[in-house]
Amino acid sequence: MESEPTRIMIAVNESTIKGYPHPSISSKGAFDWTLQKIVRSNTAGFKLLFLHVQVPDEDGFDDMDSIYASPEDFKSMKQRDRVRGLHLLEYFVNRCNQIGVACEAWIKSGDPKEVICHEVKRVVPDFLVVGCRGLGPFQRVFVGTVSEFCQKHAECPVISIKRRAEETPQDPVDD
Amino acid sequence: MESEPTRIMIAVNESTIKGYPHPSISSKGAFDWTLQKIVRSNTAGFKLLFLHVQVPDEDGFDDMDSIYASPEDFKSMKQRDRVRGLHLLEYFVNRCNQIGVACEAWIKSGDPKEVICHEVKRVVPDFLVVGCRGLGPFQRVFVGTVSEFCQKHAECPVISIKRRAEETPQDPVDD
Repeated sequence: MESEPTRIMIAVNESTIKGYPHPSISSKGAFDWTLQKIVRSNTAGFKLLFLHVQVPDEDGFDDMDSIYASPEDFKSMKQRDRVRGLHLLEYFVNRCNQIGVACEAWIKSGDPKEVICHEVKRVVPDFLVVGCRGLGPFQRVFVGTVSEFCQKHAECPVISIKRRAEETPQDPVDD
Repeated sequence: MESEPTRIMIAVNESTIKGYPHPSISSKGAFDWTLQKIVRSNTAGFKLLFLHVQVPDEDGFDDMDSIYASPEDFKSMKQRDRVRGLHLLEYFVNRCNQIGVACEAWIKSGDPKEVICHEVKRVVPDFLVVGCRGLGPFQRVFVGTVSEFCQKHAECPVISIKRRAEETPQDPVDD
């Protein structure tokens, strides 16, 4: 006899290095860690809430060489972003289904760190898992870190899962 | 068929407000949270590692009015500290035994934030749970916070569990 499942929010994003909507190394790492270390065999005891925040500017970056001639062009770009986001969430939802752990997934648009904290307030998860790149202090100054911001501002406990050293891509700011 | 249990280190300390070795509100809160939200009914899947760090100066504070006349007096003070620490750990170990979750507990002496990070390095837990008082930025400057230091420096994921607002003692710096 168990009470309500523990609701774990996991912030996920796309890889910046691979071509198509793969999860980033750090968000895949955070997800795998949650399954292995927290959920374990107790799949009925947990519900995973996947939040993907799309950054409007960043997502348009691939389109620097595109020519926009009509409102339709922007619409199709937005449509493409939406599809990419859905593919990303599909990865996580599929894996949860295979394992048999309940989940929900949704997309928001905006500044990831602020949207995450806002969604924590709205959804009230038991805790938040954020993958992070484990950057040094020098790199952090330039890229900022979502995990540090959430540690300070999210209104729930937060656990940051560092990317493992052997998984660091060539440019550690990636992913 | 499960792999090795998830090893969770929990840093615990005594209450600063009550007379005898009670766990502080924040470390009791961190422990209860871990049981309710992480361990749940899966008691075989986890092992709890309780670390209590005794601060030599602080522990002597109660003895301001005592008179020390011989080396024996100091020895008996140290003995009393040791007993207090053991009583504290006994609380957590007893509760784990009642619930049926494996545990280990030990005492170290020194600066809590540094000893905790050192012990993380030595023991390599899967993650660390630290209770915190949820102080505002102004109060934090004066008391420092163990949880913030560990978030930054511990070589494992760290989750800080804030004391609930309704449990805040009269002086929020306590406990």
